[in-house]
Amino acid sequence: MHHLDCWIDTDATLCCTQHFAVAIKIKALNELAAKHSNLKVIQLEATDPESVSKAAKEVEAHLNGAGLNVLINNAGILTPCSIENVDAEDMLHVYSTNVVGPLLVVKAFLHLLKKAAKDNNEAGMSCSKAAVINMSAGLASITVCQETYDFIPVVSYRCSKTALNMLTKCQALGYTSDGVLCTAIHPGWVQTDLGGPNIISLIIVQTFHPKFFQRPDDSQIPAGKSVTLRITDSRRFYSWRFGFKVLI
Amino acid sequence: MHHLDCWIDTDATLCCTQHFAVAIKIKALNELAAKHSNLKVIQLEATDPESVSKAAKEVEAHLNGAGLNVLINNAGILTPCSIENVDAEDMLHVYSTNVVGPLLVVKAFLHLLKKAAKDNNEAGMSCSKAAVINMSAGLASITVCQETYDFIPVVSYRCSKTALNMLTKCQALGYTSDGVLCTAIHPGWVQTDLGGPNIISLIIVQTFHPKFFQRPDDSQIPAGKSVTLRITDSRRFYSWRFGFKVLI
Repeated sequence: MHHLDCWIDTDATLCCTQHFAVAIKIKALNELAAKHSNLKVIQLEATDPESVSKAAKEVEAHLNGAGLNVLINNAGILTPCSIENVDAEDMLHVYSTNVVGPLLVVKAFLHLLKKAAKDNNEAGMSCSKAAVINMSAGLASITVCQETYDFIPVVSYRCSKTALNMLTKCQALGYTSDGVLCTAIHPGWVQTDLGGPNIISLIIVQTFHPKFFQRPDDSQIPAGKSVTLRITDSRRFYSWRFGFKVLI
Repeated sequence: MHHLDCWIDTDATLCCTQHFAVAIKIKALNELAAKHSNLKVIQLEATDPESVSKAAKEVEAHLNGAGLNVLINNAGILTPCSIENVDAEDMLHVYSTNVVGPLLVVKAFLHLLKKAAKDNNEAGMSCSKAAVINMSAGLASITVCQETYDFIPVVSYRCSKTALNMLTKCQALGYTSDGVLCTAIHPGWVQTDLGGPNIISLIIVQTFHPKFFQRPDDSQIPAGKSVTLRITDSRRFYSWRFGFKVLI
């Protein structure tokens, strides 16, 4: 079982699933929530339809009639494996969390996203109306697989994230008529244990609605932190890992 | 459970998994085997490691010390579904057959493929040495998804075949040092219920060893039948479905 937390920022009506296998991270999130009254933490298991449905009901109650603007499917797992030792159990386990999870979560929260899209009269789609963001990875790219395969084969993870890109495309096509924007991004170097404390870089690897994200003006970048968002199209796979310059 | 047959042509030492849900097709295959002594039919369940292992042992015994030149992972399933009604069970079921199946089958037969590669002193890799061919699909393409999504969304199938392309890439990279060529192809219009009796067209959608297949000279095409093989690279997705001309 993967204990996942779903947190919502009620100012932005933003919802994010997060995988917290490490207890200290749950503690840190709860501490953050204690300091900020607009942050609400709700636990869910992304691969369990009942748990997801229960969390969606909690979020709905908390929103108190408002819609949900942004849903970030950030929960995911990576298990070390190679083509020699990967087995059926690992393949299905990783696929369940990384692909089936985002599918179930979006289905459960869809009525709230639709409501947010309907309640906003702006033209087109945007994250200020309703958006789903699935966390993909540079390792999802078949084209550049060779550059990293020898030192990080992670076959089950690669297959799952490639499939997640396809799921995102299907979600984008399926929910366009509802005004819900769906996209997959590769987070690059983020403010986690693997990243530094002052850098947040985001590169969109597959956006099916190219005008969703815009790189912010330099004047909008907070002191000491940088945000980089770059637009791609669905036929190319951009990643900070493989020589593409990250604009900061 | 999916009853799958594995047949080998002992002249070419070729092995193919085939999904036969319809009894008449099993009957037809057995009739074909009765007419041709070089065709041996062995039943296996591609998602069951024990069944796959048992089939590999039978093939090994039948080969009587020789290696296996070509393994075709043709077993696959498609279940009708949309982004609205696809569920966790269907996602995992289809992934298990279409992605985990080919993974398990290749692992179980790998020693025989390696033997065939080792026993042939020709330079490079080829299907006359040792090759794995995974049956992919035009529906695996994220880029052209939009062209068919409305009338055949099949989300679970699309996600699985996209993942199969990644698996194939990992197999190609993992087994190159063993001399085992791995590729994924989209069969296009083939000699099945969906195709005609006189056409066999094959288009390679992702070949990681570009010189594997060559289009045959016109003089080599048998009267009344055509074989088309076209080379692609791993960055593009060719398909007879979407306006690419099929050369016959």
